[in-house]
Amino acid sequence: MIAEFSIVPIGQGEELSGPVAEVLDIVDRSGLPYRLTAMGTIVEGEWDDVLALIKECHRTMRRHAGRVLTRIAIDDRDKARDRIRGKVEAVEKALGRELSK
Amino acid sequence: MIAEFSIVPIGQGEELSGPVAEVLDIVDRSGLPYRLTAMGTIVEGEWDDVLALIKECHRTMRRHAGRVLTRIAIDDRDKARDRIRGKVEAVEKALGRELSK
Amino acid sequence: MIAEFSIVPIGQGEELSGPVAEVLDIVDRSGLPYRLTAMGTIVEGEWDDVLALIKECHRTMRRHAGRVLTRIAIDDRDKARDRIRGKVEAVEKALGRELSK
Amino acid sequence: MIAEFSIVPIGQGEELSGPVAEVLDIVDRSGLPYRLTAMGTIVEGEWDDVLALIKECHRTMRRHAGRVLTRIAIDDRDKARDRIRGKVEAVEKALGRELSK
Repeated sequence: MIAEFSIVPIGQGEELSGPVAEVLDIVDRSGLPYRLTAMGTIVEGEWDDVLALIKECHRTMRRHAGRVLTRIAIDDRDKARDRIRGKVEAVEKALGRELSK
Repeated sequence: MIAEFSIVPIGQGEELSGPVAEVLDIVDRSGLPYRLTAMGTIVEGEWDDVLALIKECHRTMRRHAGRVLTRIAIDDRDKARDRIRGKVEAVEKALGRELSK
Repeated sequence: MIAEFSIVPIGQGEELSGPVAEVLDIVDRSGLPYRLTAMGTIVEGEWDDVLALIKECHRTMRRHAGRVLTRIAIDDRDKARDRIRGKVEAVEKALGRELSK
Repeated sequence: MIAEFSIVPIGQGEELSGPVAEVLDIVDRSGLPYRLTAMGTIVEGEWDDVLALIKECHRTMRRHAGRVLTRIAIDDRDKARDRIRGKVEAVEKALGRELSK
């Protein structure tokens, strides 16, 4: 399955790129395929591996902030693999041209 | 913490209340405080209990559908308890009157 | 259609119930059917009315904060009316009993 | 502001890349900066332009399906521009290295 998640500390100022970088370092070291976007992090793997990673990221942010909002969107499809790139390519194929990425 | 989740099977027709009821039965038997809304289910508990429940609900829906989209929103605040009712009451208190619920 | 939305100011402290109450007052005066939950506000109406309301709420919060995160989830179904209560009742009917609300 | 959105038709089969491509064509012709990801489409612009675009995409999908679920996440920050690339680069800078994109 693939999952996109975002983790927002409340009451910590507007600039979030510091704690976000700490969380990304955890994602990077997890070994799971991932992609950082302007609105979240997309990761691919089995349920238990993905949710264990998100839990560690969430807990890390909670050490910096008394309140944390975490959003997770999961797309779980039978026999689907390599979908972080594959879903975008499927749309490009249906559209007949490449899109900005 | 409190979490709202929704689980949508893809390609199973417009009427989702049957499988949604099966999932709600799992929530109801979990023993965790919860509330069903028109847009999802809100549940309160520790991370591991809440995520184990959502995993069971997601897996149940996956037996009905080859593709499932699950959304989770978590609000995790230090020392906060009984927030399914309490957050609404805090807003009503700040507003100075009761709201439709 | 029905829509759930949440509006979070960034960098304004943990306690959000003050600005949230100001936004709820706007919702209350809009005349659209709505329900406040622990995780957001559910409102029912046509696209233009619902999105004009959310825009006004978002703009109000932006006057309090230099950065605002707003989430909107829309469920738009042909010929469906009175769904804030109706969707919950449909699940209860399929389940054969009432649920905590 | 930047916004990520996803539009899911209910009851139309598992394979969504056809209607998704039609919607992407609308985004592509809008002239707004955008990026397609595995979990949605990120677009940058003023509130009215972005929401008018999402409305057109939503309406297009509704012609294909009797029920449509649309999710929108907005990040609106004072004086922020060119953030589809910029937010990712800010995290990379804080982390001290490039990330997979």
